[in-house]
Amino acid sequence: MSEKMKAIVKVKAEKNGTELMDVNMPKPDSHGVLIKIDVASICGTDVHIFNWDQWAESRIKVPLIYGHEFAGHVVEVGENVSSVGVGDYVSGECHIYCGQCIQCRTGLSHICQNMKVFGVDSDGIFAEYASIPESNVWKNNPEISPELCSIQDPLGNAVHSVFSTDVVGKDVVILGLGPIGLMTAAICEHTGSAQVFAVERFNSYRTDLAKKIGVDAVFQSTEDAEEAIKTATKGKGADVVFEMSGSLDAMQAGLKLLKAGGTMILLGVYSKPALIDLSNDIVFKYITLKGIFGRRIFDDWYKMRGLLGTPSIQKKLQTIITHRYPFEQFFDGMEAMRSGKSGKVVLTL
Amino acid sequence: MSEKMKAIVKVKAEKNGTELMDVNMPKPDSHGVLIKIDVASICGTDVHIFNWDQWAESRIKVPLIYGHEFAGHVVEVGENVSSVGVGDYVSGECHIYCGQCIQCRTGLSHICQNMKVFGVDSDGIFAEYASIPESNVWKNNPEISPELCSIQDPLGNAVHSVFSTDVVGKDVVILGLGPIGLMTAAICEHTGSAQVFAVERFNSYRTDLAKKIGVDAVFQSTEDAEEAIKTATKGKGADVVFEMSGSLDAMQAGLKLLKAGGTMILLGVYSKPALIDLSNDIVFKYITLKGIFGRRIFDDWYKMRGLLGTPSIQKKLQTIITHRYPFEQFFDGMEAMRSGKSGKVVLTL
Amino acid sequence: MSEKMKAIVKVKAEKNGTELMDVNMPKPDSHGVLIKIDVASICGTDVHIFNWDQWAESRIKVPLIYGHEFAGHVVEVGENVSSVGVGDYVSGECHIYCGQCIQCRTGLSHICQNMKVFGVDSDGIFAEYASIPESNVWKNNPEISPELCSIQDPLGNAVHSVFSTDVVGKDVVILGLGPIGLMTAAICEHTGSAQVFAVERFNSYRTDLAKKIGVDAVFQSTEDAEEAIKTATKGKGADVVFEMSGSLDAMQAGLKLLKAGGTMILLGVYSKPALIDLSNDIVFKYITLKGIFGRRIFDDWYKMRGLLGTPSIQKKLQTIITHRYPFEQFFDGMEAMRSGKSGKVVLTL
Amino acid sequence: MSEKMKAIVKVKAEKNGTELMDVNMPKPDSHGVLIKIDVASICGTDVHIFNWDQWAESRIKVPLIYGHEFAGHVVEVGENVSSVGVGDYVSGECHIYCGQCIQCRTGLSHICQNMKVFGVDSDGIFAEYASIPESNVWKNNPEISPELCSIQDPLGNAVHSVFSTDVVGKDVVILGLGPIGLMTAAICEHTGSAQVFAVERFNSYRTDLAKKIGVDAVFQSTEDAEEAIKTATKGKGADVVFEMSGSLDAMQAGLKLLKAGGTMILLGVYSKPALIDLSNDIVFKYITLKGIFGRRIFDDWYKMRGLLGTPSIQKKLQTIITHRYPFEQFFDGMEAMRSGKSGKVVLTL
Repeated sequence: MSEKMKAIVKVKAEKNGTELMDVNMPKPDSHGVLIKIDVASICGTDVHIFNWDQWAESRIKVPLIYGHEFAGHVVEVGENVSSVGVGDYVSGECHIYCGQCIQCRTGLSHICQNMKVFGVDSDGIFAEYASIPESNVWKNNPEISPELCSIQDPLGNAVHSVFSTDVVGKDVVILGLGPIGLMTAAICEHTGSAQVFAVERFNSYRTDLAKKIGVDAVFQSTEDAEEAIKTATKGKGADVVFEMSGSLDAMQAGLKLLKAGGTMILLGVYSKPALIDLSNDIVFKYITLKGIFGRRIFDDWYKMRGLLGTPSIQKKLQTIITHRYPFEQFFDGMEAMRSGKSGKVVLTL
Repeated sequence: MSEKMKAIVKVKAEKNGTELMDVNMPKPDSHGVLIKIDVASICGTDVHIFNWDQWAESRIKVPLIYGHEFAGHVVEVGENVSSVGVGDYVSGECHIYCGQCIQCRTGLSHICQNMKVFGVDSDGIFAEYASIPESNVWKNNPEISPELCSIQDPLGNAVHSVFSTDVVGKDVVILGLGPIGLMTAAICEHTGSAQVFAVERFNSYRTDLAKKIGVDAVFQSTEDAEEAIKTATKGKGADVVFEMSGSLDAMQAGLKLLKAGGTMILLGVYSKPALIDLSNDIVFKYITLKGIFGRRIFDDWYKMRGLLGTPSIQKKLQTIITHRYPFEQFFDGMEAMRSGKSGKVVLTL
Repeated sequence: MSEKMKAIVKVKAEKNGTELMDVNMPKPDSHGVLIKIDVASICGTDVHIFNWDQWAESRIKVPLIYGHEFAGHVVEVGENVSSVGVGDYVSGECHIYCGQCIQCRTGLSHICQNMKVFGVDSDGIFAEYASIPESNVWKNNPEISPELCSIQDPLGNAVHSVFSTDVVGKDVVILGLGPIGLMTAAICEHTGSAQVFAVERFNSYRTDLAKKIGVDAVFQSTEDAEEAIKTATKGKGADVVFEMSGSLDAMQAGLKLLKAGGTMILLGVYSKPALIDLSNDIVFKYITLKGIFGRRIFDDWYKMRGLLGTPSIQKKLQTIITHRYPFEQFFDGMEAMRSGKSGKVVLTL
Repeated sequence: MSEKMKAIVKVKAEKNGTELMDVNMPKPDSHGVLIKIDVASICGTDVHIFNWDQWAESRIKVPLIYGHEFAGHVVEVGENVSSVGVGDYVSGECHIYCGQCIQCRTGLSHICQNMKVFGVDSDGIFAEYASIPESNVWKNNPEISPELCSIQDPLGNAVHSVFSTDVVGKDVVILGLGPIGLMTAAICEHTGSAQVFAVERFNSYRTDLAKKIGVDAVFQSTEDAEEAIKTATKGKGADVVFEMSGSLDAMQAGLKLLKAGGTMILLGVYSKPALIDLSNDIVFKYITLKGIFGRRIFDDWYKMRGLLGTPSIQKKLQTIITHRYPFEQFFDGMEAMRSGKSGKVVLTL
């Protein structure tokens, strides 16, 4: 192994502050695992870091190797590592949890009180090699391609969202067709939803992707959707609404789309507070509103392993991966992400 | 049986439009059950009808016998009635459900699409006799007093609220100590909550009631509560918040009191939309917000039967019944309700 | 409408006691619905009645029109019927429930204490016309064929079984590939199971059907299955076992196939008591064993409506319907059922 | 700290093989925590080791310090320990889990595939000092006495059992009044069960304890119980049966006590297989049978913390602790356990 490696580094706290450069190879500590990255996938979070927006400015300390979605192979393990070995084909959960707080000790380590995120709070995986703690390593099924394994972080968000409610035989609506919205649609289609509707206001590229993966109907506005869903469900309304757009208007309209007794799953980031008619839209309608963060560690990873093993969902997910670049063309990949004319964008090393 | 009976009738669509008067006895239809009322209890809804506020004006058609909380004995049954007989000691679920809509056919008849409410949409039980459908009759345990049996409607709201989440060994907060808030506190204390905190801003009478039923601490503001709960839970925060005040400020503050992964149960009526920081207070905190309406028919009634049979909860609930009047003193009872210096107010016939 | 109709009648309490004959048309009572049968499906229960085995002898009173699985159109309704009209395209839940017992009043009417079954305890649907209570009528989706709609009774058993546990991303085993076992396999495949294994000891016809609907592997013995499942699940074992064979050996072997923490769903009829190693196979392994009866009324029917609307499950279910006869050829249909070389057998009127 | 300490050691693989002797103090490894034991509690497992029965012979390797239920104070921590410090008041979960297997990674570490138990597979806590892994340490609430904190292992079994089902407002039966049966009764009483019945065939001492903690009725045979429960539940039957006797007769009779749709929780050890009428007692009755092992780590410990903080359950549990001895009188304590005329027996150091 050489002492130096290529990495994507946020070197300066500013918009044009990202560089592809040579850096020192990381060394795993006694509980760490060193991984040769095969495929890295670009997340919306990475776009925030690249763009250096308000959130990035408040959270990120430069210099930082960013990126947290990947598949790779283990090349070295720390002396106390017992469950992972050299040669293992792995991905990783990006949320580093303490294992000691009440959340961690009651099956909720994805909302650990002392959470750190690699690629955000410490060096990540946009590099030839990365070191992460053994507790965050996930062994992939060798039959699944590195490309598919690299997107388990957002896929886990979608899995977490869908299985926090019941979609079997149900009419569901997805608001916002970013990658996680598209994956949510794919999983609903794959696991027995009756009808899957989606609303995507601006991005016709993603509307087309949704159709390819079998979404029953995609609308450009919640107004259009409302009438159509009423007809298609014979007045009942949607059983479940997944709000994944981050739009306050969509969120408010989504509550109207729900049947009495329905559920809204919230996985958006909202730039300001929402005005919600609690009496009419929540209390009298007997609505459950559930916020989703991350993915259950590792319950949702096991669910993904099971799902990824079947060809029909593999095919849908491969449709959602729209762009593939060599690692050296990171800036092209980032541009594809920023354009919006993309699903998932992956980098190959 | 005489042909005439005494009843409390909203005769005019105005504030001073209620009269105690003689009216014709009702006759049960083929599926109806005629009940001699023994105890009637006054609900907040009855205060709205008495006061003739905006809601009453939009919903109520005069003349109307109001009231919907009661215990009594069956004196006559319609020809098709099979499950209830003369002499049975009964109360009744006020929500008349159709039995045919999707909600009714999937165990959610309390949010029936074609719901009517007796005492609101048709004649109620502030009278010597009342006729209700067999499907709404509940046979009481003869060992439980008519007074306690008469308050199963609000008690059912509290039961529905508490058992829509998990309070065993948990730290819970109740915002608003109206009768349902007090009952919720009593049930949490009775069923194994760790610590029960309450916030009641204005009404010291009800604060005193809460202390009598064993609430660990009552605060006059959510600000006071916040600091104290943080200390008492060692920084964890509340596991569950029951928002029963109808105050938007309280609701917003309640979200801050919750631990990550906590649940808010909403059973308030809010005069205007709430401004909610969805990202920080719902999504990132992994919060579940659940609106509650009515009580599960009859799952929650069976739960009440089981609970009411034990002396310790009986005692707590009797503490919450603060005023007892003969039926003829309805106007005194209503005044006690309107003063706020009361828990539940019951009328004896 | 003519006064007479053709019907399949068990006329004598003996093996050769079934006749196709002319009988009087039924008249719906005030809550009844008269239905022109379009397609009738033969159930295993009907085979018992035909064969006049011990169970039939103890339960059935002749003469009886049997059969309880159907799709048809409403031709007349009783005077009190409000939710169904002439011309409606319907099927029916065969369990007639009282609506008044504790089970019925808590969402468990499928285990009503006063249950009667049409086609068993009263005249059924192997006839040109049948009358059933309004409360048991289910309105079909007009886009689904009468053939598929006629098998919702056993499909409901399968739906009830699968959704009493969690199969998404899980490795499941089905013991016994009768029609309900096949349907269970189809639903698991359709709703995201990882791997679906089946054991069918005797019937290679049904083994072939299982392969056609996409079951990953079918074994002739639980011994063969055990080794293969261990390998395919990397030593973990099955997450869920559906015991649908009625074989005590299979049931006992099934407990060994389960991983620690797994679930066994039991929907078989066993001729004698089972010897079960409770300590090793239930307690120490932290196993849940769940008996299934009937289908949730109407929760599981709504789930079926949602599922039946998607082409991929339609296709699997159509594969399971292997024989179609005109109604007059009932005896051929019954022979196909009794031969075991069949999936579902349907009769067209 | 002295180099030597007193300990109860199984020195020989035979019945009279236990000695109170001086041994070397343990040293915590880098992830270990050294604890000064304040109170040790004797478990049924310890009786098996003392008696050197078949199970002990097959599992235990001498010499062994046994015992696994305790409360104490931390006196030293390994270099990698971060969540526990010297002076902390602690108890410990006896199941040492690997943290890496599928069970551990999905919230089921209490059934870890690589489980070891301290006091069984490695040295335990019948000693002045003991060293256990940081991952198994539980910080007690300082307001709860060491005596109560020392019995959280069996209390956790009871908590696990009760909250694996729903007992609020329900009629429950407990078969077998050993310490865990008594604790189960106490928790059911504390958390809102309607009626708590128990059957204890042989041990009138424990029958008296059950009455002291408020059990509604205790029977000497399941036959006596059956009639009484039928009457007390008006023919409904028990909602939940906790089988904690380890008697096959009791288990079989318990299935008959259940209402249709009821649940049996199994936490007994059975010397031979049970003969179970699956058709009539499980399938047609729609029964759920759930095996229980250990306690959820640490969900059930948090539930215990919440419950132990309330005086009414403290009092019930203190009633169940019937014998207290100085540590040096271990043999008297063991004799009290073996006599059966005891609840929990604790040793003070």
